[in-house]
Amino acid sequence: MFVSSNLSTNEKGHLTIGGVDALSLAKEYGTPLYVMDEDTIRNACRDFVRSMNEYYDGNGMVTYASKAFSCKEIYRIMMEENMGVDVVSGGELYTALSVGFPAEKIHFHGNNKTYEELNLAMKNDVGEIIVDNLEELNTLDEIAGEMGKKANIMFRIKPGVDAHTHDFVQTGKIDSKFGFAIETGEAFEAVEEALKKENIILKGLHCHIGSQILDVDPFVFTAEVMFRLMLKIRDELKFIVSELNLGGGFGIKYLPEDDAKDYDTFMKSVSAKVKELCKENDYPVPFIVIEPGRAIVANSGTTLYTVGSVKNIPNIKTYVSVNGGMTDNPRYALYQSPYTVAIADRADKDGDTLVTVAGRNCESGDIIQENVYLNSPKAGDTLAVFCTGAYNYSMASNYNRVPRPPVVMIKDGKSRVIVKRETYEDIIKNDI
Amino acid sequence: MFVSSNLSTNEKGHLTIGGVDALSLAKEYGTPLYVMDEDTIRNACRDFVRSMNEYYDGNGMVTYASKAFSCKEIYRIMMEENMGVDVVSGGELYTALSVGFPAEKIHFHGNNKTYEELNLAMKNDVGEIIVDNLEELNTLDEIAGEMGKKANIMFRIKPGVDAHTHDFVQTGKIDSKFGFAIETGEAFEAVEEALKKENIILKGLHCHIGSQILDVDPFVFTAEVMFRLMLKIRDELKFIVSELNLGGGFGIKYLPEDDAKDYDTFMKSVSAKVKELCKENDYPVPFIVIEPGRAIVANSGTTLYTVGSVKNIPNIKTYVSVNGGMTDNPRYALYQSPYTVAIADRADKDGDTLVTVAGRNCESGDIIQENVYLNSPKAGDTLAVFCTGAYNYSMASNYNRVPRPPVVMIKDGKSRVIVKRETYEDIIKNDI
Repeated sequence: MFVSSNLSTNEKGHLTIGGVDALSLAKEYGTPLYVMDEDTIRNACRDFVRSMNEYYDGNGMVTYASKAFSCKEIYRIMMEENMGVDVVSGGELYTALSVGFPAEKIHFHGNNKTYEELNLAMKNDVGEIIVDNLEELNTLDEIAGEMGKKANIMFRIKPGVDAHTHDFVQTGKIDSKFGFAIETGEAFEAVEEALKKENIILKGLHCHIGSQILDVDPFVFTAEVMFRLMLKIRDELKFIVSELNLGGGFGIKYLPEDDAKDYDTFMKSVSAKVKELCKENDYPVPFIVIEPGRAIVANSGTTLYTVGSVKNIPNIKTYVSVNGGMTDNPRYALYQSPYTVAIADRADKDGDTLVTVAGRNCESGDIIQENVYLNSPKAGDTLAVFCTGAYNYSMASNYNRVPRPPVVMIKDGKSRVIVKRETYEDIIKNDI
Repeated sequence: MFVSSNLSTNEKGHLTIGGVDALSLAKEYGTPLYVMDEDTIRNACRDFVRSMNEYYDGNGMVTYASKAFSCKEIYRIMMEENMGVDVVSGGELYTALSVGFPAEKIHFHGNNKTYEELNLAMKNDVGEIIVDNLEELNTLDEIAGEMGKKANIMFRIKPGVDAHTHDFVQTGKIDSKFGFAIETGEAFEAVEEALKKENIILKGLHCHIGSQILDVDPFVFTAEVMFRLMLKIRDELKFIVSELNLGGGFGIKYLPEDDAKDYDTFMKSVSAKVKELCKENDYPVPFIVIEPGRAIVANSGTTLYTVGSVKNIPNIKTYVSVNGGMTDNPRYALYQSPYTVAIADRADKDGDTLVTVAGRNCESGDIIQENVYLNSPKAGDTLAVFCTGAYNYSMASNYNRVPRPPVVMIKDGKSRVIVKRETYEDIIKNDI
């Protein structure tokens, strides 16, 4: 019935998250509230790692793309699960390092890392820096030289693959701010350039073809495109690229009808293709890195709100207003992203009322979801939005000076706060 | 040449903001940096207030819609300029009260104010609460009763006017989460209901027809629609609505071709219509409230970034990546909002290169502006985005754990920080 395995109902008909009554969580911590289920996160990590072991002989690393959800506790969990992580800013790097995440398993991404960020990364010996452009390559070579270190890098490559997702979540096609295109020759030239740099060690090539991709074929195709570039580099530059980073973008089940593939399907197909290509071309099997973000945390998360008003506009629409909105989940406002919603008080009953769930912010675009069925919603009900573990807390703002909700983690039937609720005092803290 | 009067160039060809060299500001405070010009803000306030005095005999109040830009200092400035303010959350109310803003000149808005927020508002005796729905009316009546107070309210009314702006910035039409519709009869019924409540004092009716409206006609038409409702209320309920709040939405000049009307044009037309209707119908001239937000602060603001890379994709596009993005200005990602941009180092020269300005965030939709001309942009240049005083800092997030930029205010050729730059320590502060 539910989109995530951690969701169920109890004898009162209430929604449960990781076995805990959602209404009791709402009561204890207040709403809006982000709830995450720890087992769901750990199981996703284990599925990926097991797949990598089973189908690719463990010759790779699963790195969690922490922009999906970043806070101290998630890096602790990733550490315990023997995952790598990728970070996209000094702030994410700082958070990971603050809990002692091993720097050698951190990959640093970004289309415009600042000098200070590259400096911070090199000072802390992060595992690899995924270089996006030549300006960055030059800066990094300089910084490494000044420190008397070598920078381990990958290049971000645009394989030119269109994975047919929403325009705004496309990143692999050639018209993208990210990386070097293959077809224009700039990817190859960048490799040539890197091999000349004294303080740069080129480890591998990285690509990322989009987000929320529910097919396996685009990944397999991309692996082949990338492999062809690696062959060209071997043949023409006599250099073996030893690592291939296939990025993330693995789709998850937001709606009951979403056909999310299990990770084995992905890993099996991609591994077979890479091994086959290596054999055909007598190429050493590369170390593979994959970067699931959403696929690790999205399904673990549920957001709980309190309904403030139900407004029926005859013959037009019924608005259900909740006490959060685009400030804690801007994804509908940004991308009209789909979510499954339910009234937590009567989660055992089907929806019977077609509504639009609106947020509390003074903005017409502040909508959580349109045209969804809820069970007889009324003021005071607790409304649950599912699969909010990724790109919700991480994208939250203080628009309207609304404090960001806390994040509560469920484990073994118990809950604990992992990110505290913001206070008004927090909000005015930097005001002079 | 520039879209705001506070912008110019100096003998070095650099951009100046309120007479101060933008490059020296970037150097002193770092980038990204929000810069605001105090005179521009104060002049906008004075223009509105003067218009209200001149064309409506001062029989009204100009309230600054502080969701456009909220921090302690802006409430101090509004206080000095004898403005009212409107707030849309407990957080904005808390900020206003923290600097001693007179509560009686605060109006409290929102489609889903929480119990705690209504309580905070009543405890502090805010001037008026703009009630959005019947649940709120009932809650407010209860809270006021418990405190032994009376709540001064306005109702938010949907006049059903379509001001032809972008779908997502429409709020006056009947399909809106905000307020009570006139044509369904619910607005009238709400007034009937309020008049029966013991602890509610109905002061007036409020409406808001949209954002960034460059025509005067929709406002004049709306005033008439609202007045007709006031007449019906007088005739059928024998009650005189003494205040009319016409909301905000006054368009500003984002692009050189935007034909923003001066406030006199607006006030003159609206005043004439209201006075004419009152005379015709022997109705006491109502106290008028207007709520400019964007029109007060947008033109005062400029955001300064540093260019990190310039990426030319032959025959496709040139991306200029800057060290900020949707985290400090999500309006292009949300609404494809137009902005004027320039290279601050050579602001006296015309743009010669067609580019897309991209942000630093790991998100394809992280774009500041597409298809704009810049003067030979290169890494290290300071890029300026104009008219960012509204809905930029206020909508900023920590996506990618990027710290929010500081806000610097310019006055008499001097600069001062009014909101401090966030630190990594700030970002992890609530992480357990």
